[in-house]
Amino acid sequence: MLIQLTYASRTSKTLMPDDLAAILVASKRNNARVGVTGALCLTNGIFLQQLEGDRTAVSLLYHRILADPRHRDPAILDFSEISSRKFTQWSMGSLSSLESNRAIYLKYSRSASFDPYTMSPTTLRAFFDEIMYNAAWVA
Amino acid sequence: MLIQLTYASRTSKTLMPDDLAAILVASKRNNARVGVTGALCLTNGIFLQQLEGDRTAVSLLYHRILADPRHRDPAILDFSEISSRKFTQWSMGSLSSLESNRAIYLKYSRSASFDPYTMSPTTLRAFFDEIMYNAAWVA
Amino acid sequence: MLIQLTYASRTSKTLMPDDLAAILVASKRNNARVGVTGALCLTNGIFLQQLEGDRTAVSLLYHRILADPRHRDPAILDFSEISSRKFTQWSMGSLSSLESNRAIYLKYSRSASFDPYTMSPTTLRAFFDEIMYNAAWVA
Amino acid sequence: MLIQLTYASRTSKTLMPDDLAAILVASKRNNARVGVTGALCLTNGIFLQQLEGDRTAVSLLYHRILADPRHRDPAILDFSEISSRKFTQWSMGSLSSLESNRAIYLKYSRSASFDPYTMSPTTLRAFFDEIMYNAAWVA
Amino acid sequence: MLIQLTYASRTSKTLMPDDLAAILVASKRNNARVGVTGALCLTNGIFLQQLEGDRTAVSLLYHRILADPRHRDPAILDFSEISSRKFTQWSMGSLSSLESNRAIYLKYSRSASFDPYTMSPTTLRAFFDEIMYNAAWVA
Amino acid sequence: MLIQLTYASRTSKTLMPDDLAAILVASKRNNARVGVTGALCLTNGIFLQQLEGDRTAVSLLYHRILADPRHRDPAILDFSEISSRKFTQWSMGSLSSLESNRAIYLKYSRSASFDPYTMSPTTLRAFFDEIMYNAAWVA
Amino acid sequence: MLIQLTYASRTSKTLMPDDLAAILVASKRNNARVGVTGALCLTNGIFLQQLEGDRTAVSLLYHRILADPRHRDPAILDFSEISSRKFTQWSMGSLSSLESNRAIYLKYSRSASFDPYTMSPTTLRAFFDEIMYNAAWVA
Amino acid sequence: MLIQLTYASRTSKTLMPDDLAAILVASKRNNARVGVTGALCLTNGIFLQQLEGDRTAVSLLYHRILADPRHRDPAILDFSEISSRKFTQWSMGSLSSLESNRAIYLKYSRSASFDPYTMSPTTLRAFFDEIMYNAAWVA
Amino acid sequence: MLIQLTYASRTSKTLMPDDLAAILVASKRNNARVGVTGALCLTNGIFLQQLEGDRTAVSLLYHRILADPRHRDPAILDFSEISSRKFTQWSMGSLSSLESNRAIYLKYSRSASFDPYTMSPTTLRAFFDEIMYNAAWVA
Amino acid sequence: MLIQLTYASRTSKTLMPDDLAAILVASKRNNARVGVTGALCLTNGIFLQQLEGDRTAVSLLYHRILADPRHRDPAILDFSEISSRKFTQWSMGSLSSLESNRAIYLKYSRSASFDPYTMSPTTLRAFFDEIMYNAAWVA
Repeated sequence: MLIQLTYASRTSKTLMPDDLAAILVASKRNNARVGVTGALCLTNGIFLQQLEGDRTAVSLLYHRILADPRHRDPAILDFSEISSRKFTQWSMGSLSSLESNRAIYLKYSRSASFDPYTMSPTTLRAFFDEIMYNAAWVA
Repeated sequence: MLIQLTYASRTSKTLMPDDLAAILVASKRNNARVGVTGALCLTNGIFLQQLEGDRTAVSLLYHRILADPRHRDPAILDFSEISSRKFTQWSMGSLSSLESNRAIYLKYSRSASFDPYTMSPTTLRAFFDEIMYNAAWVA
Repeated sequence: MLIQLTYASRTSKTLMPDDLAAILVASKRNNARVGVTGALCLTNGIFLQQLEGDRTAVSLLYHRILADPRHRDPAILDFSEISSRKFTQWSMGSLSSLESNRAIYLKYSRSASFDPYTMSPTTLRAFFDEIMYNAAWVA
Repeated sequence: MLIQLTYASRTSKTLMPDDLAAILVASKRNNARVGVTGALCLTNGIFLQQLEGDRTAVSLLYHRILADPRHRDPAILDFSEISSRKFTQWSMGSLSSLESNRAIYLKYSRSASFDPYTMSPTTLRAFFDEIMYNAAWVA
Repeated sequence: MLIQLTYASRTSKTLMPDDLAAILVASKRNNARVGVTGALCLTNGIFLQQLEGDRTAVSLLYHRILADPRHRDPAILDFSEISSRKFTQWSMGSLSSLESNRAIYLKYSRSASFDPYTMSPTTLRAFFDEIMYNAAWVA
Repeated sequence: MLIQLTYASRTSKTLMPDDLAAILVASKRNNARVGVTGALCLTNGIFLQQLEGDRTAVSLLYHRILADPRHRDPAILDFSEISSRKFTQWSMGSLSSLESNRAIYLKYSRSASFDPYTMSPTTLRAFFDEIMYNAAWVA
Repeated sequence: MLIQLTYASRTSKTLMPDDLAAILVASKRNNARVGVTGALCLTNGIFLQQLEGDRTAVSLLYHRILADPRHRDPAILDFSEISSRKFTQWSMGSLSSLESNRAIYLKYSRSASFDPYTMSPTTLRAFFDEIMYNAAWVA
Repeated sequence: MLIQLTYASRTSKTLMPDDLAAILVASKRNNARVGVTGALCLTNGIFLQQLEGDRTAVSLLYHRILADPRHRDPAILDFSEISSRKFTQWSMGSLSSLESNRAIYLKYSRSASFDPYTMSPTTLRAFFDEIMYNAAWVA
Repeated sequence: MLIQLTYASRTSKTLMPDDLAAILVASKRNNARVGVTGALCLTNGIFLQQLEGDRTAVSLLYHRILADPRHRDPAILDFSEISSRKFTQWSMGSLSSLESNRAIYLKYSRSASFDPYTMSPTTLRAFFDEIMYNAAWVA
Repeated sequence: MLIQLTYASRTSKTLMPDDLAAILVASKRNNARVGVTGALCLTNGIFLQQLEGDRTAVSLLYHRILADPRHRDPAILDFSEISSRKFTQWSMGSLSSLESNRAIYLKYSRSASFDPYTMSPTTLRAFFDEIMYNAAWVA
């Protein structure tokens, strides 16, 4: 069964550019092997990630993330069966935290700063649909 | 929770251009701080404003407007949960009362003069959807 | 409340061009004052008119038309709440009875000649939607 | 075509019991002949009546009511195509204005006193559906 | 226009039984006069109230509540057009805070203690639908 | 936000009656404190559990279950926003694995033996709806 | 393909009881052989019949009726694919024209006398649904 | 009432080009007079025709076709109320049986050769919608 | 994945009561082992069977039936994903061909004799829903 | 009745290019004769094929494929009534297993390698809709 799982977590310490690069490299290698795709936003010390793939494989990957000390306060925000993937071009796309993405963050947030922990499942789906087309991505 | 609240009020006295400018400056400063966005029409001595943001923050802002002596006869006209904001480019956009907006006002009003107090929630939502694209805005 | 009322009537005698011009002049003056907009077709001695505006104002206007001796056999054909007006550019648009409108009349009529008295509410709404875009109007 | 038309009017003077009885007698005789059925409420000097029947026959009957000097301020409140009648047991049922009907009036009114002029088409349809089953009728 | 407005507030001090009785007496007197009906829950020092009536009358009443020093942290939680009222038997029904209502509170709350400030509009409507039939009311 | 999360896991060793009793006692104590309710089935060495409550509280509880050595192969099977809880009578109801529940298991399973790991979200929701009314529960 | 066809026709001359009995006997014999079921009303010299069965068989039967000199002015009123039959108890049920069926006729007619030629497909379907349960049938 | 009726028939003998031309000339003359429009396909000795117009006029026309010895095995395939006509440019359009129309025939047929007798009402409506735009017509 | 597959076949020779009994005994033994449930009708020498279970298991079972020389002219009539089974009380229920089931057969057949080969998927689903409750079953 | 049947099978041995060419030649010849169209993907030793045509003809064709020793582990994955065909340009289109189709395979697969046996009916329909427009086809 093909599903998507969306979760948020906080970075356990201020991440250095090298840390994020390492996360992405590891993420892409692991995801490709188990057929998981998705997108990752890191803004204000908060990760917001949508994972797509087999229901069991995504659960396993999420459980491995829980055990990673770089993630604090993990919370499942959304989960649903899907009939096809959205992010097939990346094993894991990464959204830059540049100024150009601010308007998108505001459009789906209840407050001026980006706080995915309070976003409803409906809002999260609209957010990930929009970033496919309108956001600036880290290459 | 992300919601929109739409209300109307009457200007307590004839507003001078400076008054309106002051309202907009204050409105933009306050809204940006609490993550509220929206649009404001001032026509025939009637304010019609749509506020978007966190349910609690919008309630607080509306309650502060009630206490402002420049507003008379305030009335809540519409309120609903939304999955994303419409007016992300403004902390508060302001519609000019120029001739060019008259046809839009007529399209959604039951009478020849603009009277938002009698507009239904459905009509108000259609009105704010349309002004996003077709109305002339004060810069 | 914003509503539309559609009615048909027969001309009580053969109308001269001057009669129709007079009807239109009076209609535009009266409608503008009470915030009623709409469209008028006069074909084969039958008036078909859609009025849009406040529920009470449209009722009043229709009652005045009933008292006008130029209208015979008046009948209400459709009436419904609307969230916005269709005919904001005219206080009363008038459709010419030229050849170029014949195909539109046929599309919505059950017989070869135009007979609005037999058109259902659904057909009438489709008819007025189409004439907005495809019909030839009297200037 | 089978339709229902709902209108309100005010009594032009205080009606005596004999006036109302006369209205009902005439109403029943006229309606039966032209196949019109319906229900009539008279409360606080306001008539609220729903007529059911052929589109042309109901228009004609409504036009005759307009000409009756006992009705002031007539206004069409609702009109729609129906697939069957609701009030087949009466050529014209009449709702008593007894205390027992007060709760029903309040349920569908925006104010403490019964004011059908402000009721929306949706509210009017729910009102007439309910009185079929729960209201006290004049025999 | 008939609408419902639901809001929550906190009691500004611990209310004595006499305070609540006084609130209810005043509430019923005021509401009846302006045609507002509804229901009131007071649990854990939080008021949750649904008001039904004319859009303007309910706005006015809510604005008067805002000015009442016994209410702190007022917040509008839901608002929508309705075609009929739910609480016609009370000008203001009051839900007891007895043990017997606990299961209902839990059913619609995200936490073990009743916290209407976090209830979504959908949950609030389901809550008020249920209490009509299953809750224990203060006489 | 009120959500439900459904997961399956395998018992890491054959559970003794005392183990299950201990799980239930701990589960009820923990759940009540954080406002989580739900239902638990233990059949053929597989746990199937539906948790209801605040989105963050349920995530936290699920993460604690993951760390419990009695659970192997945990997998999230379903997750969705709900407007009210289903299992308010239990902090955690427990379904017996008696013969009398076999027909229910078969009705929602693709094979003769109960295997929740292959049940779709739609099937899982229908299963939990049914057990509310038709299953035999451990007291 | 299973379909229903509804038509009306006028009796070419005043039918004697023996004529109608003969029609029914022949109708039942023919219908049973080709698997057509249905219902027949004869009121005011108008036949209204609904035929159910295979698309080709019903067409053939209707074409044979057209050739029968006892039917004048035949007109197809409705036709649609159905997933099951309504009138399985009769090869052809026959509705009596007794007083007791008058209220049903009025409920679905636009005029005081029964005139199926003017009934819409929607009204005809509602009519045949109702007579299954509420009409008086000829044995 | 505006309806469409779709039927098929077989040509009683091999039609010569002159026969078809004669059919079309007669068809156009008759249809124009009674306000019937439509489209005609003649392929493999099978007519498939959709007629649009007044319910009574279409019935009459179909009954006249039944009596025409050039049609064998007539069968009504579809019939429904419509709110507007599709084929207003022709009193009767005629589809050529050229190669260029073969792909369209295949798309809506269950077999390699065109057999409208087996096409469902849904398929027939999709077929006539498509030929409006994509088929090659006889001038 | 839980699915249902419905097929028909003809008996290759006249079945003796012992043949049918043998089919049912084998069917029940095989189905129970692979978790397939369902219902079987044998009428006029035609089998109509609905199988429920895992998509792969049902395919395998159907393929085995194809290889059974007692079945001629097998044809898949319907197939769809289901969220739960209908026939959990039987590994294979069997409908008697008694007179008492005739009315049910007629209700869903286009002809007087039962011919499942021509029944649409929609009709087949309605048929199997009905026989659960209204048909006479072989013990 | 027009239906589509989708099935998967494994190649019983590694297919040589000549084998596949022979399969396509035979497939096209057989399909054209019986009016079956469709599309075929061969990737990783798995056939995924969608067949469109008459319900009986598709069943017969599928049964013949079952008897072909080049197919192992056949399984019906989807089946539904359709109102028109998708693949009218091919009697059997064949999707290349080139790199350029990989992204499409991933989009609809739960794992990194293409495994149609686990794809749901909904996913399969979306997959065949997409390949019509975006996939690279073998000429």
